[in-house]
Amino acid sequence: MSEAFKAALSKLAAMEQGHVWLAGAGPGDPGLLTLHALSGLSQADVVVHDALVDARVLALAHPKAVLEFAGKRGGKASATQDDITRRLIALAFSGQRVLRLKGGDPCVFGRGGEEALALAAAGIPFRIIPGITAGIAALTAASIPATHRGVSQALILVTGRSGDGEAAMDWAALARLRQPIVLYMALHSLDRIVDALIAAGMDRTEPVAVIASATLPDQRLLISELGRVAAETRDADCEAPAIVVIGGIVRLRDKLLTLAAKIPDLVA
Amino acid sequence: MSEAFKAALSKLAAMEQGHVWLAGAGPGDPGLLTLHALSGLSQADVVVHDALVDARVLALAHPKAVLEFAGKRGGKASATQDDITRRLIALAFSGQRVLRLKGGDPCVFGRGGEEALALAAAGIPFRIIPGITAGIAALTAASIPATHRGVSQALILVTGRSGDGEAAMDWAALARLRQPIVLYMALHSLDRIVDALIAAGMDRTEPVAVIASATLPDQRLLISELGRVAAETRDADCEAPAIVVIGGIVRLRDKLLTLAAKIPDLVA
Repeated sequence: MSEAFKAALSKLAAMEQGHVWLAGAGPGDPGLLTLHALSGLSQADVVVHDALVDARVLALAHPKAVLEFAGKRGGKASATQDDITRRLIALAFSGQRVLRLKGGDPCVFGRGGEEALALAAAGIPFRIIPGITAGIAALTAASIPATHRGVSQALILVTGRSGDGEAAMDWAALARLRQPIVLYMALHSLDRIVDALIAAGMDRTEPVAVIASATLPDQRLLISELGRVAAETRDADCEAPAIVVIGGIVRLRDKLLTLAAKIPDLVA
Repeated sequence: MSEAFKAALSKLAAMEQGHVWLAGAGPGDPGLLTLHALSGLSQADVVVHDALVDARVLALAHPKAVLEFAGKRGGKASATQDDITRRLIALAFSGQRVLRLKGGDPCVFGRGGEEALALAAAGIPFRIIPGITAGIAALTAASIPATHRGVSQALILVTGRSGDGEAAMDWAALARLRQPIVLYMALHSLDRIVDALIAAGMDRTEPVAVIASATLPDQRLLISELGRVAAETRDADCEAPAIVVIGGIVRLRDKLLTLAAKIPDLVA
């Protein structure tokens, strides 16, 4: 094992002083870190992380690295996006090797693009390291294939939050597509989104899964239908981070688990 | 470095005899492998891989592991999906530890769900390990943020191939959504898809990027517009694997590169 790891590691890039790596930590399970992200953890002087990065991942940082929490949590007063980018720029200017570590993929509803633009404008060299995005990992963790021939031809990743002054999402067009929808950060707006999809003609019995804390030891899964998922999610006290998936792929879970019922241990 | 890796590795699952791990290898760059996938490579007796798994990734397999190519390439006669699942089942029944390694994420247009159903029906214990899907990694590799506040609220992953007898994709509804579209395996059907989107009202000047061999040393990038991308892709001899992205996020690349022009080394 260690030989393969050494070989892989020896070819990874070195992190230079005054540079920032914007990396995704994946959905939570440390085994879903990429080698680049782990390499960044082992080299960085400072790790600036958000609330979604698991403690077991942060434990992989170099023992001398400074861990800085710079997350945002819906509703709570905490660092603003401007605060975070200013901090990244200040750390880089002071010559630190900076790992900016975000849950999931930094550019999938993670504002990685905004941070990259700010770093570029400040003249800070940086690189972006993709991570496994929570929406796709959550489906696998719930035994739901993200795509399936004969069932779907697309996978639509959507944020449940819209910025101030942004055009509203066209939920009617989304309903008309009849392809699976994966909602990020949608617990607070689930009522409104569900109503819009039903108003646009989506069936109230369309299968829905809510996956909270995907890939973590406290992962929770709720299987429901479009017409009742908002109420059931409230009743079950589902907490963020959660992914909501709507569509026929959810039904494949039953098929997979029924077939596999005779297998002693199944599916990570 | 090695201490962090050892710590991370010591907590990863062992691969048992007669089990199959269906793992994603990510887009190509070995640094984008997950720890679980690398762990599988180091433990497996047999690695059954497709054509999209890079040679540098396969080089990380245990020296005694047997590497079996079981890929499919559009147009060429090679293993069918049934052949592959039969082979996985036979190897597992014979007590081998089997890593089924696919490019990208096994369940994002990778038929991982079909292979999982076949393994479950045969009573083979298995787990699915997500990988970084090519569509998202390709955008980052091309300096295009996958999502961006004020520009997009969704990311639509779509296959350019449709199975026999499947309902056609509703390209008109997709055009109406006005959200970025990421096409997988679409080089052969790009003319048809572009025509359908334009017929549905999408602007011929909508920005498009074609990213071939994303994250690999021979990565190629074509920046174009909807009305001329099909012809330009033909003229440029773009070859699969390629990802096509359509939408306003493509414009952010210019902004990022202009801002970063003064930086000596930029963006992985």
